[in-house]
Amino acid sequence: MKKIVLIPDSFKGTMSSMRVCTIMEKQIRAYEPEAKILSIPVADGGEGTVDSFLSAQNGQKVDVMVKGPFMEDRKATYGIIANRTAVVEMSECAGLPLVSGKRNPLKTTTYGVGQLIMHAAKHGCRTIIVGLGGSCTNDAGAGAAAATGIRFLNKAGDSFIPTGGTLKNIAQIDRSALCPEVAASTVIGMCDVDNPLYGPTGAAYVFGRQKGGTDETIPLLDAGLRMFAKTVYDSFGVEIANIPGAGAAGGMGGGMVAFWNARLQSGIQTVLDTVKFDTLAQDADLILTGEGRLDGQSLRGKVVAGVAKRAQKLHVPVVAIVGDIGDGIEAIYDMGVTGIFSINRVAMDFDRMQSRSPQDLTLTVDNLFRFIRGFLKN
Amino acid sequence: MKKIVLIPDSFKGTMSSMRVCTIMEKQIRAYEPEAKILSIPVADGGEGTVDSFLSAQNGQKVDVMVKGPFMEDRKATYGIIANRTAVVEMSECAGLPLVSGKRNPLKTTTYGVGQLIMHAAKHGCRTIIVGLGGSCTNDAGAGAAAATGIRFLNKAGDSFIPTGGTLKNIAQIDRSALCPEVAASTVIGMCDVDNPLYGPTGAAYVFGRQKGGTDETIPLLDAGLRMFAKTVYDSFGVEIANIPGAGAAGGMGGGMVAFWNARLQSGIQTVLDTVKFDTLAQDADLILTGEGRLDGQSLRGKVVAGVAKRAQKLHVPVVAIVGDIGDGIEAIYDMGVTGIFSINRVAMDFDRMQSRSPQDLTLTVDNLFRFIRGFLKN
Repeated sequence: MKKIVLIPDSFKGTMSSMRVCTIMEKQIRAYEPEAKILSIPVADGGEGTVDSFLSAQNGQKVDVMVKGPFMEDRKATYGIIANRTAVVEMSECAGLPLVSGKRNPLKTTTYGVGQLIMHAAKHGCRTIIVGLGGSCTNDAGAGAAAATGIRFLNKAGDSFIPTGGTLKNIAQIDRSALCPEVAASTVIGMCDVDNPLYGPTGAAYVFGRQKGGTDETIPLLDAGLRMFAKTVYDSFGVEIANIPGAGAAGGMGGGMVAFWNARLQSGIQTVLDTVKFDTLAQDADLILTGEGRLDGQSLRGKVVAGVAKRAQKLHVPVVAIVGDIGDGIEAIYDMGVTGIFSINRVAMDFDRMQSRSPQDLTLTVDNLFRFIRGFLKN
Repeated sequence: MKKIVLIPDSFKGTMSSMRVCTIMEKQIRAYEPEAKILSIPVADGGEGTVDSFLSAQNGQKVDVMVKGPFMEDRKATYGIIANRTAVVEMSECAGLPLVSGKRNPLKTTTYGVGQLIMHAAKHGCRTIIVGLGGSCTNDAGAGAAAATGIRFLNKAGDSFIPTGGTLKNIAQIDRSALCPEVAASTVIGMCDVDNPLYGPTGAAYVFGRQKGGTDETIPLLDAGLRMFAKTVYDSFGVEIANIPGAGAAGGMGGGMVAFWNARLQSGIQTVLDTVKFDTLAQDADLILTGEGRLDGQSLRGKVVAGVAKRAQKLHVPVVAIVGDIGDGIEAIYDMGVTGIFSINRVAMDFDRMQSRSPQDLTLTVDNLFRFIRGFLKN
């Protein structure tokens, strides 16, 4: 084989996508010493998203002083890759680990995320990918919006930076001072959840508790998001409540649409677009993808399905290496997957299997390439 | 593909080799409608051995009235396949299910097995395969030998038919009246254990308890086998004690060597020889084998290893579909296996996995042929 593309998701709870790529590449190298092997670890918007993009593409890290979850000063890093594209991880300045022991979604802010976005835009980036994972906030991205020039006014006409607890106080929103470089940029919110902004499946009720929300505060957070959506609609006529992913990252998904006209999409779509997958893969002999579990349900945003749909058009065979293979996978073959191989090789439950995963992945990839070589040779 | 050979072992505890063949063939047929598919379910010497051979080869069943474990009359069946070859299952007339509720290895006899062998020999068979599995006896095959004309004499010079409890009474063995057709036949003892005749790993101590042996009687059974070996050695100069497999089927393995100059060999070797595997498989495009568990240890007598060694010489690729893949399997690739695929597709323990096995095998074979077709096509 001349060219092999590796584009796996993480195996949730066991291996990052970068680790999966590393293992795959090492094993394949033994059988295909001459092949060009492209590793594209898929980022999901959470911690490690910048590193994943930098691993797949050339680029550089940029350090900036910004505000943390409680408006404290802190250093944060984002990445600039090819085509004037920046990758910002929300978790860098509004991430859960930053509020360990003092989680409070009523008070925390995404302000720093907006600073990173504006920094990238002012430095020439025109596509800004924002990874919406692992946040400690519930401010609907109002803090980040404020950092980029959006003004939030209360009933008295005073400007303030809303947080989860004060979204309800927004009486008016003024977009006129939005940073022109941000306004001129394409902002992409990257998330693998499709929750609406509020309600039983919204940001507060589904994700609020892990951010420190309680039986008392979660209804307040939810009410704040609901009022925020109404204010946005009243101000600009934009309906964000039910956009899939609006509820990602404490409503940041919804805010991004409202203020920056952002596009919300899954990690895999973002990666495929950003790396120009179709061009990279069109002359590949094989594409290897994978994820922790594959089944017939919930194909939206899934890495294997996303890769397969593109590869099918390119007529390049796709093999998925996965943890568990669930039921109803016929649809996945129809999408263009040629073969699906589980790394499970002994009958044992996940708790015991988990620690063996790197070794089992190694063996599975090794076996696959032995088979390809041995069978094709004959 | 023009020709595919299926030659799996059983998946112990879940699927017989015939079941495995049936599932494999059905799935393959969907992708290779024109291919010639040969199913050779591997027999292990236990119950189902005759059916396995008849499934792999044309042949017929023969019913004979013989003696059961307690010398009662009973009907037993053996098979005659091509090349004047008979397949006799020991379990037909000396099997554990026949003594349910009255197991007694001191008293039970293999006499009927000898009758079946003699019947086959007298009807023209010149190769007689005896499946040594699931026996209820510990008579070292003396009963079967007696049925074919061997005479056992006690100290008083009286002829008798020894059982597990009376092996110690044999003072002299007279081979002069051995049925000439049996003497002229090649007798093969088929077993997948390599226990010696007696001692801690011998027939009585390892298998005696499941036959109804107790803390009191097992030492007696063991002592009987030990004295039997000495008598055989004193009579003919044949040392049977440590032949691998001598301890199979209550010492029947050892007795077969002593009286009929039998060859003891594994199920897979017997099947490979009998079906003339090299001729059948030489123009195959692919050989599919498999077994319940594959690892680097205990390769002797294992089906996958046996098949691979032959196939390697024929330069036909071999794929093993297995239950668990253990450690140290490098050696198996070196033997000529091209690919090893586990049917395990979800992380769960064996108790829960077991009932899913047919379905998981189906999916694994289906996936393999999708992959072969999809990948080769590209």
